[in-house]
Amino acid sequence: MNQKPEKQTKRSFQSPKGTRDFYPQEMLRRRYIVDAWRRVALRHGFEEIDGPTFEHLDLYTVKSGEGIISELFSFQRAGGEDVYALRPEFTPTLARMYAARARQLPQPTKWFCVSNFFRAERPQRGRLREFFQWNCDVIAGEDAEDGDVEVIHAAIAVMSDCGLDASVVSAHLNDRRVLTAWAAQNGIDPSRHDEFLRIVDVRAKNPAECDARLRAMSIDPGAFGALLASPTDSADISDSSSLRSVLAARRRLSGAGLDEWATIDLSLARGLAYYTGMVFEVIAQGERAVAGGGRYDNLIELFGGPPTPACGFGMGDVVLANLLEDRGLMPEGRELLEALSRPMPLRPDVFVVSTGKDGADEQVVPLVARLRRGEEAEGWRERGVRPWGAGRYSVPPLHARRSYKQTKNIGKLLGDAGACHARFCVIIENSERCTLKDLDRGEQSEGVALAEVGARVSAAR
Amino acid sequence: MNQKPEKQTKRSFQSPKGTRDFYPQEMLRRRYIVDAWRRVALRHGFEEIDGPTFEHLDLYTVKSGEGIISELFSFQRAGGEDVYALRPEFTPTLARMYAARARQLPQPTKWFCVSNFFRAERPQRGRLREFFQWNCDVIAGEDAEDGDVEVIHAAIAVMSDCGLDASVVSAHLNDRRVLTAWAAQNGIDPSRHDEFLRIVDVRAKNPAECDARLRAMSIDPGAFGALLASPTDSADISDSSSLRSVLAARRRLSGAGLDEWATIDLSLARGLAYYTGMVFEVIAQGERAVAGGGRYDNLIELFGGPPTPACGFGMGDVVLANLLEDRGLMPEGRELLEALSRPMPLRPDVFVVSTGKDGADEQVVPLVARLRRGEEAEGWRERGVRPWGAGRYSVPPLHARRSYKQTKNIGKLLGDAGACHARFCVIIENSERCTLKDLDRGEQSEGVALAEVGARVSAAR
Repeated sequence: MNQKPEKQTKRSFQSPKGTRDFYPQEMLRRRYIVDAWRRVALRHGFEEIDGPTFEHLDLYTVKSGEGIISELFSFQRAGGEDVYALRPEFTPTLARMYAARARQLPQPTKWFCVSNFFRAERPQRGRLREFFQWNCDVIAGEDAEDGDVEVIHAAIAVMSDCGLDASVVSAHLNDRRVLTAWAAQNGIDPSRHDEFLRIVDVRAKNPAECDARLRAMSIDPGAFGALLASPTDSADISDSSSLRSVLAARRRLSGAGLDEWATIDLSLARGLAYYTGMVFEVIAQGERAVAGGGRYDNLIELFGGPPTPACGFGMGDVVLANLLEDRGLMPEGRELLEALSRPMPLRPDVFVVSTGKDGADEQVVPLVARLRRGEEAEGWRERGVRPWGAGRYSVPPLHARRSYKQTKNIGKLLGDAGACHARFCVIIENSERCTLKDLDRGEQSEGVALAEVGARVSAAR
Repeated sequence: MNQKPEKQTKRSFQSPKGTRDFYPQEMLRRRYIVDAWRRVALRHGFEEIDGPTFEHLDLYTVKSGEGIISELFSFQRAGGEDVYALRPEFTPTLARMYAARARQLPQPTKWFCVSNFFRAERPQRGRLREFFQWNCDVIAGEDAEDGDVEVIHAAIAVMSDCGLDASVVSAHLNDRRVLTAWAAQNGIDPSRHDEFLRIVDVRAKNPAECDARLRAMSIDPGAFGALLASPTDSADISDSSSLRSVLAARRRLSGAGLDEWATIDLSLARGLAYYTGMVFEVIAQGERAVAGGGRYDNLIELFGGPPTPACGFGMGDVVLANLLEDRGLMPEGRELLEALSRPMPLRPDVFVVSTGKDGADEQVVPLVARLRRGEEAEGWRERGVRPWGAGRYSVPPLHARRSYKQTKNIGKLLGDAGACHARFCVIIENSERCTLKDLDRGEQSEGVALAEVGARVSAAR
């Protein structure tokens, strides 16, 4: 007991509350998660960016108001005038960076970032003051729902890569406009829609409180419950265009082979005010959300750029690590070292374009999704193969990109394939066959079955 | 001109002064440098760690005094009592982490860290407010000079890997005790030795000022200049044990095949007060130091650990990137993507031990150094092969570790090789031959020439 004074003087020699020391073993586990993020983002055609660890404080208050300051670590340089804040999230930096170069950037721009972020809140399970987060965003481009599907697909792909399946985690989809349309139809003034969304947001945690607050807004909780229970019955919503948009995103995910991973969940509202339409969370049983995001079509304009549709999500390392460790899905020892020694797919394996003839266009998205997913060997789990084991795939996941251009000028599309240094270009000729061009060797094979592309490309890897 | 007010309101949407936005191309170049650091550290047997991005402010003032506060970004959480600072360097975090677990850690402990650091100083060429830095440290262990050579070797290996050669950069070595011994011998009171070191530290930048300040200390600048000019003439220094230690480190670097890369430079003093002996810098013509470090034998005790010898260095990304870009040594396009797709050598390729018989012990360090360096193909530069090109090596650099134990119990040493998941174990039998054990297959070859180990091991990679 009389040692207390000495302990007091040593107190500062600990890591700050809510932060972590990464000794070699903890560091390897952190890298396993970071590598999974990076590998999936790369093979889905996202390009890595990063910004400063701290930004001008204004960057956060302009979007979220002064209220956010209590959740931030903010500071000034000794003798300096500017006020800075440690970044609590990546979206404002991304919007600032996009706005600054909007005119030179591709349509769409697909960016990802793996970095550390900071929140000055109380540490608890799944929440720390310094944490790592993966962000994926699709900005601009002609087809917004296409971007929605691309980001949701990337989030699900990490779950699948890490050995989690749809019985454990799934992507819950909604569109905020479904809820606000229903609210309007039920006599709620538009000025109270944000309040309505906040009530919906807490419903899962505290249904009784939610119901009481709905009644106070003159909403029948039973009718609201019925809406949530049967979201596809669009008769409940007079302005059903927003619901159609959720259903369309859901359908496109099915087309990309992700049917079992996605569910429509009208109870989802998301806390942040900047979402303008589709929102989603990847949710695991008994845990916080692993990832969350949505569409924020007004933000880039707010940061000085042109009006630009955009969509993205963030996934944190802490909840994901808990999920993997609880289920024995984190490799150890030699297996962990080998998993971390895998090469990163920075160079695109394949670039997919369509001739636009005979149903070719409809094959682009499903083929790209299939190439990125790889083909798993029959019964790999039953044979005791681990998610990181060499025996998992008969055709490994590939880095696949595609043209987003409407042109059918194949020469121009081949130029784009070359410009991103893709190894192969797939030119889809009709609903079943393609021409496969080896861009390194200048050779091409015609009439290749779409189902064989993955094996052909991976053999040359 | 009348648009100025609007510009004013947009001013905050820029990255803070002295920080960087990494768009995809800048990010790839950053990764090229970070990957080079990580690859070299791993194959030299260092294990990666990291700490929090901010620490308690005390962690920096306890070592460097209150004066350092003006060079730091410090802050409090709104409503919180603790004062934090963005980390300006890694050594205090490392000392804190080592001190907390000193008893469980291996002897020696070899750690590296690749992270971002922050200084609140004026940005200029080669210096930013947020930068990336690679740290390598060897802590504890029975042979301090061995640790010196390990860290210097790692710093040089990155230069060599990136295609720089000894005509461009070299490691300048000194031992602070050489200078303080000479000062004592010339009548300078020990209380003024730190002042003397600070004068020496600025000599290269401003020789006239240095000479004037030496005269003010009653030192003959000519005699001091003569000492610097012929450092190996130990007759100038009555207490020559420190000089012998520099000469010994220099000799060991020669033994590891790094003769041309190392030079003794008594004018080197290093700014930080915590160095206790050997100090070094990697210096390129016309640039700031690329890397700097030294021995800090008192620091871990200061942070609550046992008395522990330690040695390490930091290398920043900004000066190294300038060096590579100025010399056309930064790959672009497809070559950059391919360079970044190389696998990381996390699993040790080989673990080297000695039987202790017939001159075997003397072969351990040179063999390990040779395996880590690889064997370059004849005339690769003349043939136009780039540093990152596949044709550079006939035997690629390998991840090689060795036993630091004094025991000759081969069974125990083999256990250590297995515990770190090495693929092969080399048991050196005499000055020329070894037994090569394939630990995955349980096979062994006897009488293998030491010169053949690299090719044999890399063939199985």
